[in-house]
Amino acid sequence: MGRWEPGARERLVMAAVDLFTEQGYDATTVTQIAERAGVTKSTFFRHFPDKRELLVAGQEELSRLLAEGIAEAPGDATPLETVAAGLVRASGLMGPQNREFAPRVRAAIAASTELQERDALKTVSLAAAMTSALAARGIPDPTAALASELGVLAFKRGFAEWTEGDRDANDELAGYVLTALEELRAASASLG
Amino acid sequence: MGRWEPGARERLVMAAVDLFTEQGYDATTVTQIAERAGVTKSTFFRHFPDKRELLVAGQEELSRLLAEGIAEAPGDATPLETVAAGLVRASGLMGPQNREFAPRVRAAIAASTELQERDALKTVSLAAAMTSALAARGIPDPTAALASELGVLAFKRGFAEWTEGDRDANDELAGYVLTALEELRAASASLG
Repeated sequence: MGRWEPGARERLVMAAVDLFTEQGYDATTVTQIAERAGVTKSTFFRHFPDKRELLVAGQEELSRLLAEGIAEAPGDATPLETVAAGLVRASGLMGPQNREFAPRVRAAIAASTELQERDALKTVSLAAAMTSALAARGIPDPTAALASELGVLAFKRGFAEWTEGDRDANDELAGYVLTALEELRAASASLG
Repeated sequence: MGRWEPGARERLVMAAVDLFTEQGYDATTVTQIAERAGVTKSTFFRHFPDKRELLVAGQEELSRLLAEGIAEAPGDATPLETVAAGLVRASGLMGPQNREFAPRVRAAIAASTELQERDALKTVSLAAAMTSALAARGIPDPTAALASELGVLAFKRGFAEWTEGDRDANDELAGYVLTALEELRAASASLG
C-alpha cells in the first residue's frame, strides 16, 4: 500500500491479532486496533473496510495467484498438476510473518462464530476461483470442481502442517502443500 | 415443534423467504417476518435465535442424519459407499417444500454477503460432521477428509439439480445426490 506509511498494514494486522487474542474479537474496536498499531482510525479504513476483513485480508490476492498459476501451467499438465501449479504460486504469498501469526489467528477464529463464517466463505471462494481457472483451460465439469476441492483441502492441510511444526525452520509453505496434495491423490485410490 | 401452534415454524420460513426476496435480507426485520407469518415476535424467537439462523435451520438435523447413516452403513462398505449411506439418510430430510423454496432461498443468499458466510459455514460444518463419523468407523486420515469433501460436493450438486429441474415431478433428492457422487467418483479417475 501507499509509500507514505510503510508497514501500517502489517502493524494493523499484528495489533488486531494481539487484541483479539487478549480480549476477544467482539470486544475489540477499530479504535483500539488503530491505537495499538500507532496509526489513526482513518489509516485503518484506508487499508480495511472493517475489523473482520482484516483477518481475511489477502483472500483476493490468493485467488488471483491461484488463477494465475493455473492459467500458466504447461498445456499437457493433468488437472492435479494444474492445481499444483496454482497452489505453488499462491503459497509464495505466505512468508515467515504469516507462519508466526497463524496460531494466534487460528485461536481468534476458533473463538468467534463471525470469524468462522468469514473464514468459511474464504474457503468456498478459493475453490470457486480455482474451478473457474480450471474451466477456462477446458477441464470439464465435474473434474474441475473436484480438482479444486482437492486443491483447497491440500492448501489448508499443508498450511496447518507448516504453521504447527517447527516455525524456526526456513522451509517454505509450497513443499507442505504439495505433500498434502500428493497424500490426497494417493487417498483417492482407496475411496472405493 | 410445539403442538400449541402447528405449522408456525414452516409459516415463518415461508414468510421470511418471501420478504427477503421482495425487499432484501438486510431490510427485513423479525417483526415483519412474524407479522407476515401471522404469529407473535416471541413465537419467532421460540423457533429461531435470529433471522439469519432461520434460513439455515436444519443444519444440525442434516449433520445428525449424515452421521447416523454413516455409522449404520454395512461393516464392509468402502469409504464412498459409507458416505453414500449418510447422504441417502440426510436426503430424506428434504421434501417437496424444500424443493419449491430452493430457488427463492438461493436468490436471497446470492443477494446477501451475511447469508453467504452463514451458508459457507454450513458447508464446512457438514464436511466436519462427516469426517468425524468416518473417522469413528476407523477410516484413516486423509481418506476420511477426502471422502467427506466428495460427499458435500455431491450433496450440493445433487440438490442443485433436484431444485433446478422439473419441480412437479415426484422424484426424490437421494437419487440426484447418488448420481452426483457417482459422477465425482468417475471424475476422480481423470485427475492425473
